[in-house]
This record gives sequence, C-alpha cells and structure tokens, in this order.
Amino acid sequence: MLFTSLKDVVNNGPNFLPQLSIDCVIFGYHANQLKVLLCQLLHSDQYALPGGFIGLQEDIGDAAKRILAERTGLTQIYLEQFGTFGQPQRTDRQTHQRTLEACGIPYGPDLWLLKRFVSIGYYALVDYQKVVPTPDVFSGSCAWHDSHALPPLLFDHAAMIEKALDMLRLMLDHKLVGFNLLPDTFTMGELQGVYETILNQKLQRTNFQRKMLSLGILERVEKKYGGGSHKAPYLYRFDTKTTPS
Amino acid sequence: MLFTSLKDVVNNGPNFLPQLSIDCVIFGYHANQLKVLLCQLLHSDQYALPGGFIGLQEDIGDAAKRILAERTGLTQIYLEQFGTFGQPQRTDRQTHQRTLEACGIPYGPDLWLLKRFVSIGYYALVDYQKVVPTPDVFSGSCAWHDSHALPPLLFDHAAMIEKALDMLRLMLDHKLVGFNLLPDTFTMGELQGVYETILNQKLQRTNFQRKMLSLGILERVEKKYGGGSHKAPYLYRFDTKTTPS
Repeated sequence: MLFTSLKDVVNNGPNFLPQLSIDCVIFGYHANQLKVLLCQLLHSDQYALPGGFIGLQEDIGDAAKRILAERTGLTQIYLEQFGTFGQPQRTDRQTHQRTLEACGIPYGPDLWLLKRFVSIGYYALVDYQKVVPTPDVFSGSCAWHDSHALPPLLFDHAAMIEKALDMLRLMLDHKLVGFNLLPDTFTMGELQGVYETILNQKLQRTNFQRKMLSLGILERVEKKYGGGSHKAPYLYRFDTKTTPS
Repeated sequence: MLFTSLKDVVNNGPNFLPQLSIDCVIFGYHANQLKVLLCQLLHSDQYALPGGFIGLQEDIGDAAKRILAERTGLTQIYLEQFGTFGQPQRTDRQTHQRTLEACGIPYGPDLWLLKRFVSIGYYALVDYQKVVPTPDVFSGSCAWHDSHALPPLLFDHAAMIEKALDMLRLMLDHKLVGFNLLPDTFTMGELQGVYETILNQKLQRTNFQRKMLSLGILERVEKKYGGGSHKAPYLYRFDTKTTPS
C-alpha cells in the first residue's frame, strides 16, 4: 500500500476501513528541544501530523508502523497508542475539497475522504539523526518543528500533540521510554537533558544519575583514549538484555 | 438511540459509523474484590463486555456514556479511554451468525454486523451499590464478575480487561481515580482496600494514610455519636472543591 499520488489514494477508498484514520505524533530530540515531525499540506499554510488510512485486512498497529516507515525511513520504531479522537466535527469537508480542487482532482459529493473520520493516535520516539523526513501525497514538505513553537495545524492535530505529550510524560518514569530519543550511546548529561526537556523542569544531577544507574538498564561503554580528553564524560548504552517491556 | 431488540439494531446498521464499535470495562469494588460487569450472550456460554455502536454524528465519548448509562442506570460516571483494538481477526463472522440464527433473524452475507470491527475501549469506575445491571439486546443477563475469576469471554475481551487493568493501575497514583469506586463517604481502611485490591499488594497502613491525607483532597466527615461506638473509624469524603482533573 504505497501510493504515488493524491489521486491514487483518492481512487483507493474502497480498499481502506471506512471513516477511520491514523495520525502519528513523531517525537525527536535535538539541541535541547523536543521536536515533532510535521507535513505542510499542498497549497495550504496548514501543517498536519503524518497520517494515513488502514487497509481492509490490515492490523491498526501495522498500519501505524507502515506510515512511520514511509515518513521517516525507519522500521524499528518505539510507538504507543495514546488515544482515539472522535468528535463528529473534528474533520471538515472544506479542507480536503480545497486540496482536491487545487490539485485538479475530480470528486463527487459522496467521496469517502470527505466523510467524518475517527482517528487513532500513535506517538513514536525516534533517534532524530536517523530520520529522513519524507512528505506524503497530501503534503509538499515534511520537517521537524519545535514542540513549543508549532505552526498552524490541521483539524484537532494541536490537541493530539498535547495529549501525546501528556502520555509521554506519564510513561517517561513508568516505562523509561526516553532512551528511544537518543543515539545508541549517550552521556548521562544528554539523558538528563531529554528528561528535563520533556518534563519541562530542571532535575537534580546526582539524584537523576543515582536513579538511572539503580535501574540496572544502562551499560557503561569503555572509554576510548584516542586523543580525547581524560575528562570526557562516560558514554552509556541502553542494555537491551534487560530492557523492560 | 435506544434499541428494543437485536433485530432493531441489525436493521439500524446504516445509522452507525461502519466497522467501529465501543467496548466498556466497567469496574466496581465489593467485598475486597475488583468486579467487572459482563453480559452473557444470547444462546451462548460466552460473556461480553458491555458495548455498542456509534451514531453517524455522535461523539465517541458520548456514545460510551450512552452505553454505560444503558447498562448501569448511572449517568455521572468516571470513564477513560484505554486503547483501541484493531487486529483484523479480532472479531469473527461465525459468532454473530450463530446468534442471529438462534434468534431467527434473517441476514445476508454482506450484513454490516458480520464485517471486521475496530473497537475503542473505555474503562469506567462506578459505585458498585448504585449500579442496576441491565442486559443489552445481544445478551440475556448482565452481572458482576470477580476480575480474578472471569468466565469465557467473547473475541479479545479478556485482553481488553487486562489492558484496562494495566491502565487503571498506572492512573491510580497519577490521578487518584480510586475514589470513584467507593460510596460518597468511606473509611481510610476501605480506601486502602481499594488500592490494595487493584494493585494486588499489601500497603503499609500509616504510610498510606499519611500519603492520602497529605494530598489535601480528603475531607473528614464529622462523627455522629448516635449510639455508635466511640472507636468507630473516621469517615472521609472526596473533597470535590479540590479534586484534581
């Protein structure tokens, strides 16, 4: 189910579950900012979360993974459902009509895409450096945005990001998901930076370090003395053998 | 949208969002047990979570409240979404076909009810004593069951209950939702019983009491000395003026 054009998607309506979509809040961490991946809609000032539809026989989680892979180039991604959005007025016909008209795609009044949609939200935590942002058929570009300075967003996508952040904060302690935002190896300071950015509060360094090390899930990587300073901080790696599920 | 018979629901397919349903895990607390409300399916040994469908223009949260009101008789209920279930094989045609045949309801092979359904799960916390369990059109009876001794369940409803319990445990500390399972006034021992039952572990009495009182959300009710023992424990009430949202 890889579509090459908006027209291709429009014509494939009967192959999707009706009136149900998926939207993904993809979080990355860079330069002490929590970033969100957004696509700018064709012929519009609005931005949208990467999203898509579900094949008639496709698992909803598999659909989310497919959408994430298409937008980021990554296949092994940490993702979690965070809520399903179903207010009757959350989507509107006019937005899609404008896009279809601007793209010169003919449509009838009963087009599947113009109906009310309920959307299942997934948030994903990715290694910022590994992502190759790739626009979908609804958008001209796809790029990272600071979660504190978001551009105008489609439908209820701003509320979706807010809800995803709430859930991420709740899960941060519970499942220690923060690691997924870092490269394979990282310093304790970088890890603390991720937590402080997401929680939006300063943490006490020695307490943070003690807590993280006490969990027994961080492996210290041997220092390389290839000309670097002896004072270079230790690097850690997430010990996958003991990763809690 | 109140249906009086299964046939009535079957004929109303075009008035529902297609291939989307709601299932509710309704928790009650009684005699140190966490109970779940289940409906026994007509002409079957299987039990199902109270569920239903969503009107074409109905908010999904409103649909959940409507279903909860119909099954419990209560309108002010604490409820939270806990996940959406969308494996393609989670529902099967045969179960519904058997019910329709046993009830003598004619149907065609393309009946909406026989298609794949994605289901949005809500859990609700109710005051056990106030609930009047009421069966729906798919079931002959509706009753409480101990969450540790569940009967054979329809589709993926056992996994839904498991997931709802996970989310309830996670939320118990975070949002202090446990109060919703108790009557309007309760003793500290009863509150501790709720927490211990849900978390499935003993808690230390003085620590528990100190923590609960430190939150500033419990109001102590004046003791009535109408013949009761002077040693009767204090009663508390959830202070709604300071209830965290």
